[in-house]
Amino acid sequence: MKLVNAIVQPHRLDDVKKALEAAGVHGMTVSEANGYGRQHGHTEVYRGAEYTIELVPKVRVEIVVDDRDAAAVVDAVVGAAHSGRIGDGKVWTVPVDDVVRVRTGERGPDAL
Amino acid sequence: MKLVNAIVQPHRLDDVKKALEAAGVHGMTVSEANGYGRQHGHTEVYRGAEYTIELVPKVRVEIVVDDRDAAAVVDAVVGAAHSGRIGDGKVWTVPVDDVVRVRTGERGPDAL
Amino acid sequence: MKLVNAIVQPHRLDDVKKALEAAGVHGMTVSEANGYGRQHGHTEVYRGAEYTIELVPKVRVEIVVDDRDAAAVVDAVVGAAHSGRIGDGKVWTVPVDDVVRVRTGERGPDAL
Ligand SMILES: Nc1ncnc2c1ncn2[C@@H]1O[C@H](COP(=O)(O)OP(=O)(O)OP(=O)(O)O)[C@@H](O)[C@H]1O
Ligand SMILES: Nc1ncnc2c1ncn2[C@@H]1O[C@H](COP(=O)(O)OP(=O)(O)OP(=O)(O)O)[C@@H](O)[C@H]1O
Ligand SMILES: Nc1ncnc2c1ncn2[C@@H]1O[C@H](COP(=O)(O)OP(=O)(O)OP(=O)(O)O)[C@@H](O)[C@H]1O
Ligand SMILES: [Mg+2]
Ligand SMILES: [Mg+2]
Ligand SMILES: [Mg+2]
Repeated sequence: MKLVNAIVQPHRLDDVKKALEAAGVHGMTVSEANGYGRQHGHTEVYRGAEYTIELVPKVRVEIVVDDRDAAAVVDAVVGAAHSGRIGDGKVWTVPVDDVVRVRTGERGPDAL
Repeated sequence: MKLVNAIVQPHRLDDVKKALEAAGVHGMTVSEANGYGRQHGHTEVYRGAEYTIELVPKVRVEIVVDDRDAAAVVDAVVGAAHSGRIGDGKVWTVPVDDVVRVRTGERGPDAL
Repeated sequence: MKLVNAIVQPHRLDDVKKALEAAGVHGMTVSEANGYGRQHGHTEVYRGAEYTIELVPKVRVEIVVDDRDAAAVVDAVVGAAHSGRIGDGKVWTVPVDDVVRVRTGERGPDAL
């Protein structure tokens, strides 16, 4: 399994949720984050100040998926988060060794 | 080493902390999250509305552990978080390459 | 690639950001967390109460880096977060399978 971790623009969250649902995803975790990328936050917030790094509010979306669904889930998030503007976000993928569904005790892909 | 990542019901946090302490865990990180699983949050929040996905408040607990402790730590969290009701949570495990204890510079399992 | 995950003292965040910038890092994600380590939060908060675990406010900093930069990035964070006092923090590293820059669709180290 894989953990797909997306840092996206907050106003894109609804579109990302819809795209994930359409891709057949059964669960996700959302949390708040702040960050910057190659522009150090400048172009996203204001112009002019050159020497301070601005942390810009973002939303983190995490989805644990079966290996065979990982590429489609990444594509769904990227497609829904994309506006073509600076600060659109980053999506990274991490290996997952095991998952447990607490209520039932199921493990592995069955727990998703 | 492994990172055990648990998304649980907020009112179970105290029980999870106690179970982890009883399992000999030396540290943990707690943060806020929201999410949904197979019921899309509906049954946890209200009934009736069919087409909106509800994000339900959860707590994230993360524990970095030695490989040989990972299974026991997962079991401790699952046991403490379990109520048998929908929304009890998910626990997943990710490989960890290295850990550093900042104050001492220790690395690997000694840093835990 | 690697995900470097640091849990540090909140008042060290500016120093950590500067050290990462000096190390050539192009982006990072910052979020709030709470936690405890080997002192169960006691020494950091107050003395005396023996049987409650205190969660102490911390800051999480995450940096996705190319494999060859991972060691230098860990060292930069550890150096900037270190005060020699209890509660200085933990830094752990996780393998990353893939990264996408949402705006451009770039993948892998080019997406960083
Ligand atoms: N190397 C990184 N490690 C961890 N998080 C990152 C990294 N780079 C970016 N991020 C996170 O992703 C968010 C979005 O980054 P952003 O889209 O600005 O990346 P970028 O490479 O600068 O692309 P663009 O040129 O389109 O702005 C940041 O606010 C930050 O939270
Ligand atoms: N596939 C997933 N990826 C990431 N996070 C998830 C995933 N599934 C669930 N979660 C997180 O776990 C939390 C709890 O999920 P939940 O217990 O409702 O799972 P479930 O499979 O629906 O089990 P149950 O049938 O017992 O409700 C969610 O609120 C969400 O934060
Ligand atoms: N095993 C662990 N798993 C997950 N997070 C941890 C773990 N240990 C510590 N942390 C996180 O790191 C933060 C800082 O820990 P801390 O620096 O107190 O570690 P320590 O080993 O007790 O070192 P020190 O003796 O210098 O205090 C904690 O508040 C917690 O958020
Ligand atoms: Mg950018
Ligand atoms: Mg559910
Ligand atoms: Mg400590």
